[in-house]
Amino acid sequence: MNAGIIGATGYAGAELVRLLSGHPKIDKLLLSSVSFEGDTMENVYPNFLGRVSNKLLKAEDVIASSDVVFSALPHAVGEHFAAACMEHKVHYIDLSADFRFDENEAVYSAWYGKPYQFPELHKKSVYGLPELNRQLIKELAKKGSAIIGNPGCYPTGASLGALPAIAKGLVGSGPVIVDAASGTSGGGREPARSFHYSECADSTAPYKVASHRHSPEIANNFIAIAKGAGQSAPQVIFTPHLVPMNRGILSTIYIPLSAKWCVKPENVLMPPAKEIEAKTDEIRNLYSEFYKDEPFVRVLPAGLTAATNRVRQSNYCDISVHVDINGSTLIIAAAIDNMVKGAAGQAIQNMNILFGFDETASLEAIPIIF
Amino acid sequence: MNAGIIGATGYAGAELVRLLSGHPKIDKLLLSSVSFEGDTMENVYPNFLGRVSNKLLKAEDVIASSDVVFSALPHAVGEHFAAACMEHKVHYIDLSADFRFDENEAVYSAWYGKPYQFPELHKKSVYGLPELNRQLIKELAKKGSAIIGNPGCYPTGASLGALPAIAKGLVGSGPVIVDAASGTSGGGREPARSFHYSECADSTAPYKVASHRHSPEIANNFIAIAKGAGQSAPQVIFTPHLVPMNRGILSTIYIPLSAKWCVKPENVLMPPAKEIEAKTDEIRNLYSEFYKDEPFVRVLPAGLTAATNRVRQSNYCDISVHVDINGSTLIIAAAIDNMVKGAAGQAIQNMNILFGFDETASLEAIPIIF
Amino acid sequence: MNAGIIGATGYAGAELVRLLSGHPKIDKLLLSSVSFEGDTMENVYPNFLGRVSNKLLKAEDVIASSDVVFSALPHAVGEHFAAACMEHKVHYIDLSADFRFDENEAVYSAWYGKPYQFPELHKKSVYGLPELNRQLIKELAKKGSAIIGNPGCYPTGASLGALPAIAKGLVGSGPVIVDAASGTSGGGREPARSFHYSECADSTAPYKVASHRHSPEIANNFIAIAKGAGQSAPQVIFTPHLVPMNRGILSTIYIPLSAKWCVKPENVLMPPAKEIEAKTDEIRNLYSEFYKDEPFVRVLPAGLTAATNRVRQSNYCDISVHVDINGSTLIIAAAIDNMVKGAAGQAIQNMNILFGFDETASLEAIPIIF
Amino acid sequence: MNAGIIGATGYAGAELVRLLSGHPKIDKLLLSSVSFEGDTMENVYPNFLGRVSNKLLKAEDVIASSDVVFSALPHAVGEHFAAACMEHKVHYIDLSADFRFDENEAVYSAWYGKPYQFPELHKKSVYGLPELNRQLIKELAKKGSAIIGNPGCYPTGASLGALPAIAKGLVGSGPVIVDAASGTSGGGREPARSFHYSECADSTAPYKVASHRHSPEIANNFIAIAKGAGQSAPQVIFTPHLVPMNRGILSTIYIPLSAKWCVKPENVLMPPAKEIEAKTDEIRNLYSEFYKDEPFVRVLPAGLTAATNRVRQSNYCDISVHVDINGSTLIIAAAIDNMVKGAAGQAIQNMNILFGFDETASLEAIPIIF
Repeated sequence: MNAGIIGATGYAGAELVRLLSGHPKIDKLLLSSVSFEGDTMENVYPNFLGRVSNKLLKAEDVIASSDVVFSALPHAVGEHFAAACMEHKVHYIDLSADFRFDENEAVYSAWYGKPYQFPELHKKSVYGLPELNRQLIKELAKKGSAIIGNPGCYPTGASLGALPAIAKGLVGSGPVIVDAASGTSGGGREPARSFHYSECADSTAPYKVASHRHSPEIANNFIAIAKGAGQSAPQVIFTPHLVPMNRGILSTIYIPLSAKWCVKPENVLMPPAKEIEAKTDEIRNLYSEFYKDEPFVRVLPAGLTAATNRVRQSNYCDISVHVDINGSTLIIAAAIDNMVKGAAGQAIQNMNILFGFDETASLEAIPIIF
Repeated sequence: MNAGIIGATGYAGAELVRLLSGHPKIDKLLLSSVSFEGDTMENVYPNFLGRVSNKLLKAEDVIASSDVVFSALPHAVGEHFAAACMEHKVHYIDLSADFRFDENEAVYSAWYGKPYQFPELHKKSVYGLPELNRQLIKELAKKGSAIIGNPGCYPTGASLGALPAIAKGLVGSGPVIVDAASGTSGGGREPARSFHYSECADSTAPYKVASHRHSPEIANNFIAIAKGAGQSAPQVIFTPHLVPMNRGILSTIYIPLSAKWCVKPENVLMPPAKEIEAKTDEIRNLYSEFYKDEPFVRVLPAGLTAATNRVRQSNYCDISVHVDINGSTLIIAAAIDNMVKGAAGQAIQNMNILFGFDETASLEAIPIIF
Repeated sequence: MNAGIIGATGYAGAELVRLLSGHPKIDKLLLSSVSFEGDTMENVYPNFLGRVSNKLLKAEDVIASSDVVFSALPHAVGEHFAAACMEHKVHYIDLSADFRFDENEAVYSAWYGKPYQFPELHKKSVYGLPELNRQLIKELAKKGSAIIGNPGCYPTGASLGALPAIAKGLVGSGPVIVDAASGTSGGGREPARSFHYSECADSTAPYKVASHRHSPEIANNFIAIAKGAGQSAPQVIFTPHLVPMNRGILSTIYIPLSAKWCVKPENVLMPPAKEIEAKTDEIRNLYSEFYKDEPFVRVLPAGLTAATNRVRQSNYCDISVHVDINGSTLIIAAAIDNMVKGAAGQAIQNMNILFGFDETASLEAIPIIF
Repeated sequence: MNAGIIGATGYAGAELVRLLSGHPKIDKLLLSSVSFEGDTMENVYPNFLGRVSNKLLKAEDVIASSDVVFSALPHAVGEHFAAACMEHKVHYIDLSADFRFDENEAVYSAWYGKPYQFPELHKKSVYGLPELNRQLIKELAKKGSAIIGNPGCYPTGASLGALPAIAKGLVGSGPVIVDAASGTSGGGREPARSFHYSECADSTAPYKVASHRHSPEIANNFIAIAKGAGQSAPQVIFTPHLVPMNRGILSTIYIPLSAKWCVKPENVLMPPAKEIEAKTDEIRNLYSEFYKDEPFVRVLPAGLTAATNRVRQSNYCDISVHVDINGSTLIIAAAIDNMVKGAAGQAIQNMNILFGFDETASLEAIPIIF
């Protein structure tokens, strides 16, 4: 079968190309690029030299010959390609934010600056976080061509980190705080001052504090998780940071525990009490149990802490579980590779589910430590 | 006058040497090192070649000829040097944790593994955060030789970031969360796997989650701030992260606002409402006013966010003020250079106060952006 | 079939584990480690969690059950394992320098500090640079169990860069200069000051100038290349540098052209003349022709320059060809991933040749750009 | 007195601002910027917040009120400012290449794409490498307003590294090879793909091989050095590399020794012979003697190798001296901070000489190791 990639020359597109090149079920890749139409992939990315010499086509031609189309375009410019895919009876997996908000058009348009162009399409699309919506994705595939809104990079780590706690009713009152750090590839391939080496190397800073577009997406996910589990959804505070690394997102998530999950240490100025260790084990076990069948979530054993260099180049989300000295705050660290589980890898995972392939096909890479 | 540095060949010691070399009131530096006694500073650190050829002496000899002694030793090994300095009527500025806990010996010994050796000394020492205790430091100096417990790197950023909010009664119920990222120099000069280039470059991870020794120090400071201002002290949750940069600490601080400081946005899924912007301005003004006479705290104007590469190599603490979309959480970003304001620079600032020098002497460096 | 790895917990060993985990012909990996015997691979390297849980055995037990053994031990400690493998009729691929000098025991012992322990073994071993010795490796395999001396990282890039020029008689009088820059992983996993993040990040320096052990290995290779082609061998000057990156070696090689290959520009202060461009094309074509059947050497087209981030995580050696403004010096830039083509990947390539497998098996990775 | 900086918002301009802010003889800085005219320096570079709030003026207004003008503009756009300065009787120190080629207009125009606009001015300007031309600079100042062509970053390291060898007649036949590695700040402040973090971090590559504009500048310097010393000038081969660091240039320089300086080792495959060590000491002493009165050149003692992180943020050029195993090639490693000795610092050094100030004024910084 053939897979098409629209926007193949952006970073997420190029990562799709790289990962899909090894997919056992894909016969042919069809690539399109507005900026480099007519050129070849290996010319634009010399690392592909001798490996991916595909010519860069028009999006229309890609759609016409593909069985599945991945769109790695920026937000708010590609909705009509989704429509075209539906016409051609082709699955459409969108890595932009366009299909992440479903019925919440008001939220989408407030953050992304324009209303839906094809409102009908948003009624049948599914948010492609497999650990939350695998069943919905499978059902959608049964009905014909599907639209998947592939999750944002930050929302993937944040949602996987908080999912068991919300679904299992561990969350007490107060907001959940997601403090996250991303590598520079999240900013894309276009040169910009923020990502100019001399301006961001050897430095750390938050950005878009209290105003990042992934904030409502995370909140939406928490609402969906809570709703599905008959729980109430916590509010979200989300702060992204830029750190000098190529890949990876580390999310540190602070979750207020509900009364029944709290322990009360005698003195919060003292080192963690034994009860806290016991409670941590209990919650870690709950997380392990929750994710035991997931191929790409690893709940780390006691003593290990999530780190981006242990999931790099892989589709894993590593999660470590901690309880604060205060006995009443759950701290989750979740690490993903923003380009894989946070973008291209998850999109392929969604494709694998849609087509009934082995969910790990072409996503088997063991993380590299450096 | 002469300044002595004990532990001169660690990173903090070497930074003291570098900064004090330009101090207008210091005639001579006396350096000591256990590991390199008898060798010279320029041999151990070739960047000092031709500039600091001082021989590395015994600590005792340094103390005997100095007017002020900085101790940059590890924790729990140098208390007797403080005693020796008091005998010699010499000011003692300790960069280790030994004099940061004053009367709270139980807390100190629980975290640092041993009781005070000279309990008397801890009754007269002062925690050297000038923005909080400048007056106490001055008074101490008047009484004769003083012991200053120089603050830890993380506690410096966290405390300066939260100080106005706590002192001015902005803090509501719930813990204050300090999520901080540090460069590798915080780990010191001794090679270790965690700081081995291939293991930490291009990666981000939290460490010592819910169990870092700076946690009780921050909590202690919050208690002291609140007490001084007649406010109640918030609990602290503190998570340190290691990021691949040489210098700098970025602290992102989440502070629950008390009811009178909150705004209530109509819909927390929507972009920040105007009222939030107004409230942010109000709090930023309060912070600016609070710190208006401080030579080393810069409250950033609207539109700027604290970043470690804007304070690098300087004694500044840059603070940016934000209010979350939810209208009820204050988010403070505070950036320092961990080796300067977080260690050697602050120690010199304390010396300048003790001796009545211009507080900025030898600390005038403009930050470098790269 | 089973593959054994002795020294599995060093960086080269771990890279062998990662790459061999995907090898279609390997049923089972047997791993040994002196430092971590009894522990598991995933405990030592948490990135392998859930993927490589193999217990770390004694070397003897690995050898007893393997069809091929890779040794990733330090130099001068594992020769007896080669002897044991020969007894067990098992192929032995040594990533250390022990089998790189064949009959030149005097050179080996002068640089590595000890004589051969099993001189007989060195008579039948082959230096495993496939592009030079593929035929010898194949013939060796026919005779029974083989010993392969896997090339050093620097010698691999240097030799592949100079091979066509020497073999085809382009080299004039004067030394060939190999100026090379390596990432930090070349220094191994043991923490050391030189590789301590704060000491090597954001800095570049040469090391072991005029005294690096890879110098005689490169010289040896040049002699072997020249001898095989009936040419005379150039002397070598080799300078390694450490640069702040995890992986990769970039070799810039300056080769004096023999008279018939030179062009004479009118004025060497002027921009490159047309004749130089023409001569460059001619030599590039010669290189392309020379390597046209090599699966892992890419001679770059005009306009591209070798860069380590275009071969990262792959077994490629990228080569770009340049002629200096002076018209008489060939400049070759050669990029490899020091852990793959410079170590584990090349070892697997050697194994594939020994067993008659597809030479690219488990080495198909497309380079990642970041 | 007042100093003006044209092009103050580029990296070299900003570095001039930072360094001149501490100059004891400068009363006032006047800054100009085309891109940010009307704005303030601290707005463009927030690290200057509260320290350099100067408004960015028109170049003409800067010239009118300054006693010395630094131009940090790109090449080939600012020659008329030199003319204006001469009219105003103001010293002009140009950090671009416009005044580096004096009478060699043909070479300049071939590499920089346009002829001189004010040919007369080039007859009286001096190339501002103090270690070569200090006397000429002093004499120029005596004659009235002077134009200084401040050296390029690469030519500074290359020339200081080769100067004693050429001047003292150590150089034999064959080209001198300058293989150099630069940090990213050399590429300036404008975002570009080559300096986009994800494209250059964790990678090393040469660029503009055999075609970099600093090649003729280095060659020119070698000619000038040789001429002044009655020696013949060697040809130059120059290859620049980009490495992932903010600052610094490391030049590794290969110099063929003339017959009388060579030693002949018995076997070039063996570790360095004693005679080589002795010869190295001899040449190192010659270098030390040559530079003994230079405030900013440090010839390193035996055992040390030049490294960029030992000169960072300082005006030093560190030089280490080596002789290859072959006994006939001198290898010099020279490290500078490209923004200081390679640009702004050297420009200030030139100003200090022009005005008869202490040559180290405002350039006293001790290098930082990280």
